[in-house]
Amino acid sequence: MTWTLAARTRKMTSSAIRDLLKLTERPGIISFAGGLPSPDAFPVEAFAVACDKVLTAADARGSLQYATTEGLPALREMVAASLPWRVDPANVLITTGSQQGLDLAAKVLIDPGSNILVETPTYLGALQAFQPMEPTVVGVASDESGVIVDDFEAKAPGARFLYALPNFQNPTGRTMDEARRAAVAEAAVRAQVPVLEDNPYGELWFDAPPPAPLASRHPENTLYMGSFSKVLAPGLRLGFLVAPADIHYRLTMAKQAADLHSPSFNQRVVAEVLKDGFLDRHVPTIRSLYQGKRDAMLAALSREMDGLGVTWNRPAGGMFLWARLPVGLSATALLPRAVEKGVAFVPGEPFYAGQADDRTLRLSFVTATSAQIDAGIAALAAAVRESLDRLSTAERDAAMAPA
Amino acid sequence: MTWTLAARTRKMTSSAIRDLLKLTERPGIISFAGGLPSPDAFPVEAFAVACDKVLTAADARGSLQYATTEGLPALREMVAASLPWRVDPANVLITTGSQQGLDLAAKVLIDPGSNILVETPTYLGALQAFQPMEPTVVGVASDESGVIVDDFEAKAPGARFLYALPNFQNPTGRTMDEARRAAVAEAAVRAQVPVLEDNPYGELWFDAPPPAPLASRHPENTLYMGSFSKVLAPGLRLGFLVAPADIHYRLTMAKQAADLHSPSFNQRVVAEVLKDGFLDRHVPTIRSLYQGKRDAMLAALSREMDGLGVTWNRPAGGMFLWARLPVGLSATALLPRAVEKGVAFVPGEPFYAGQADDRTLRLSFVTATSAQIDAGIAALAAAVRESLDRLSTAERDAAMAPA
Repeated sequence: MTWTLAARTRKMTSSAIRDLLKLTERPGIISFAGGLPSPDAFPVEAFAVACDKVLTAADARGSLQYATTEGLPALREMVAASLPWRVDPANVLITTGSQQGLDLAAKVLIDPGSNILVETPTYLGALQAFQPMEPTVVGVASDESGVIVDDFEAKAPGARFLYALPNFQNPTGRTMDEARRAAVAEAAVRAQVPVLEDNPYGELWFDAPPPAPLASRHPENTLYMGSFSKVLAPGLRLGFLVAPADIHYRLTMAKQAADLHSPSFNQRVVAEVLKDGFLDRHVPTIRSLYQGKRDAMLAALSREMDGLGVTWNRPAGGMFLWARLPVGLSATALLPRAVEKGVAFVPGEPFYAGQADDRTLRLSFVTATSAQIDAGIAALAAAVRESLDRLSTAERDAAMAPA
Repeated sequence: MTWTLAARTRKMTSSAIRDLLKLTERPGIISFAGGLPSPDAFPVEAFAVACDKVLTAADARGSLQYATTEGLPALREMVAASLPWRVDPANVLITTGSQQGLDLAAKVLIDPGSNILVETPTYLGALQAFQPMEPTVVGVASDESGVIVDDFEAKAPGARFLYALPNFQNPTGRTMDEARRAAVAEAAVRAQVPVLEDNPYGELWFDAPPPAPLASRHPENTLYMGSFSKVLAPGLRLGFLVAPADIHYRLTMAKQAADLHSPSFNQRVVAEVLKDGFLDRHVPTIRSLYQGKRDAMLAALSREMDGLGVTWNRPAGGMFLWARLPVGLSATALLPRAVEKGVAFVPGEPFYAGQADDRTLRLSFVTATSAQIDAGIAALAAAVRESLDRLSTAERDAAMAPA
């Protein structure tokens, strides 16, 4: 072997999610593991019409040519206009999925050893995107409303940024409430710590829209990231970010070096789909679909987990639900048993920057059908029951005691 | 300003090319500056048919869903089968343009301060992709056939890789001949320095195919990069790389963190276009188109530059021609004068890792029409003439002396 690897590759290993997705590709497995939007919500017909329009337009060839790194002007304008605060299209950068926004932010803001702050738990894909720049990742204590302000303030001095996903968070499904947003945004400005606000799921609310983004309060202190993956389709790999002018310029330089620009064809197709308020008609159908699936999973959990000591939350939107096994059980240990019974999920462990709560697990409720949700949760309950049965009497008593 | 930037951003500045592209967007400017393939060669109709097929297929929704990081299996197989040495599709990674291959290679192979070796001059976009990982970039002395083996061997010890673009190089248009390839590939193995072989232009040969890639000689020592940008269209942002298993695994991890995967829709559309030997019919039309444009530019140069002391090469393929001004003139200084006269090019200076030859300049012959080539080269000659006129008599005598 003549290849010398960069030191950073020691931390660039396969994610648990990645290995799991392979497991769950086995035929017959009901998967609550992936973060895959429901394909039922993909507007195939609208894409077909838009592709045809783009490729028969007078300047069709332009859709297949190199383009500017910043993105299609029309799409940047649509993004700016869609956000609930005053955004200049010049501050918008179209990215190759919002995952790329994380990669670019890492390049521009992280030196080896820089402290960066994340929620507890946090999005695994963000940890993976930050890791190559070799930060010290510090988890901020969090509750059902996101990061706890006192702990954030204590850990803020010298941190390069706080990474937060305030709406229907991946992995927990939780939402940062209005008071917490106001407090976090103010604390961030006081501490001079920018916020990386990741908002891929914000449009997928069920009962009421979530509070306004942190970015709307202090745009000069926020790098805001959004995505077309959840409201249109992830297979196009288009997202966007909004950043203050100097940061936008640096991110654009980093993007130019990374992939020159995001596919111009895809940008034109999405701009074509979006015009005339398509999302205003389309997104409510996704909300309704996902709300039904969430309700199906909540009902199945209530029915199947009765008496097993498992707890879970009730997400107000998004794709994920967060559950916790009773004392004495480990979600990581539960997984192979669950897969044997035909159901998969993601253990919570890889989502923690520091000490993990290995009793936690993430359940995606949007990809499976309602019938699969019923059968999958029943299988999961059977796996939990089997795990409990293997505990000693004393352990089982502890597991069943009220939290 | 509360944002602290990573140290690496000090070197991530706007490229000369980028600023130039803005200049050349002024209406009426004839541009030999951009590296844009001719839109006349884009198979718009084939794309339209393929989009329709993909979006009406039984599993149309799969084309809009998340997919594996490695890429669409069918496309990886097509790539492997298209290469002139035995390639296992498992060693192929589909990338978001071949530019992304450079970004991933940098992440996996470069530590801060690592020596990396490049041709003199070399592809500017590669320098930009490597820079964020903070290497020490060392230019290897090169002639019309690429890197000179003695200098490569002298600089090889401890270097992380040699980056080479053997076919119709960007910026010079030159090609590494068979003997040089054999010598460089052997020297690289002896020195235990892997080769990053970048081959976006290899299919665009005019008279005869170029010699076999370096990768075909020592695949275990080579990271090979290819692109669909020049044989189909750049606006889809699809490229690929081939690497030994362990390096492929690391690059895949890096890609997962960077953008999860390249657009699944685009991969399916390209796989649809490629099947049934489309490129065998299509690429000859690009070759013929570009050969005609090269000939037009060579003829215009002979006609217009007579007696001005300018020299240039005769590329055997690709998109670029390399010219050199007489002693006493600077391509950087010539540029604003040329733009005033309605023509743009790229000065050679940014393509050099070390000491630049500022008399050199890159002319792209593929984007402009033949009439524009005639008018643009005449304008360029006028700018050269004007620059010569401003020299003193002694300087002009030196400029006009035989090289």
